[in-house]
Amino acid sequence: MKSIAIDMDEVIVDLMPKFHQAFEARTGRKVDLALLEGNKIYSLEGGEGLREAIYERGWFRDLPFIDGADATLAWLREHYEIYFVSAAMEFRNSLEDKYDWLHERLPWVHWRQIVFCGDKSIIGTDYMIDDHAHNLETFRGTPLLFDALHNRRETRFRRVTTWGEVREFFEAELSKDQSHVA
Amino acid sequence: MKSIAIDMDEVIVDLMPKFHQAFEARTGRKVDLALLEGNKIYSLEGGEGLREAIYERGWFRDLPFIDGADATLAWLREHYEIYFVSAAMEFRNSLEDKYDWLHERLPWVHWRQIVFCGDKSIIGTDYMIDDHAHNLETFRGTPLLFDALHNRRETRFRRVTTWGEVREFFEAELSKDQSHVA
Repeated sequence: MKSIAIDMDEVIVDLMPKFHQAFEARTGRKVDLALLEGNKIYSLEGGEGLREAIYERGWFRDLPFIDGADATLAWLREHYEIYFVSAAMEFRNSLEDKYDWLHERLPWVHWRQIVFCGDKSIIGTDYMIDDHAHNLETFRGTPLLFDALHNRRETRFRRVTTWGEVREFFEAELSKDQSHVA
Repeated sequence: MKSIAIDMDEVIVDLMPKFHQAFEARTGRKVDLALLEGNKIYSLEGGEGLREAIYERGWFRDLPFIDGADATLAWLREHYEIYFVSAAMEFRNSLEDKYDWLHERLPWVHWRQIVFCGDKSIIGTDYMIDDHAHNLETFRGTPLLFDALHNRRETRFRRVTTWGEVREFFEAELSKDQSHVA
């Protein structure tokens, strides 16, 4: 079985609703989505300091799935070794939250499938799905950029915009692998 | 710079004094070291259940260095990208302890250099130093087995018995790399 490193934040876990709520609570207005193309919400006017909250215990504990992630993950794990690889080490207080989130929301995840790191250049899986180009730049396997407003201007990597599209991509990969064997 | 994945438990962190104390407190006798060759202390008569303690918060927080580890690490980091790679994921309550231990005992460690995982087969560094053969078996770089009583019967990997010897090994590697360049 080939292996896939799957990022957590903004790939399987949706951080945006919580950030948008915080932005609205502070500024009294909705985020202009056009301004988020190529930017992070905390780099916008009014968003300064919003990133500090993610250093707090509990912040990562109650976030929703990105649409369709759970269904495609349930399919993927039948065909690939999947690893959840999060650059969590910048956030000491997120470690237990992320661990507990994975075990609660995806009860089939074994601890062997979890990786918390800082620099993803040491990850040696066959595929990597990530929303940050800097994680894919140093990757030696096949990279997939998971679409997010902040990475819209990135053109160097194959982009996947939904978890349905991720499933289609890997269905095609499996067909290729099987035709090589046959 | 080439990269090295360095295990924590029984490679840079000495677990044995704490285990021996617990064994003596329970049985009233010292561990027969001859019985530890090829075995873990919790597989000995009288040691049953000693492993359970390592699931408790705080257990990993106050452990000493393996002799000479800190001095050699300070030298290694000048010549290699070093990563601390611990199979910590079996022990949810160890995550913060291990993180805090690294930052306290090796204040120069950046969060980018820390990796907590389950299965080390996804680690793609150039070298790996580990006391467990099962971590080295699937490694694609150069493996070094760090000597421990429990692995004394293992013969498949280059064995290093002290951190002085680790330094000698990498001094020789650096000379080889430089002669290739020259």
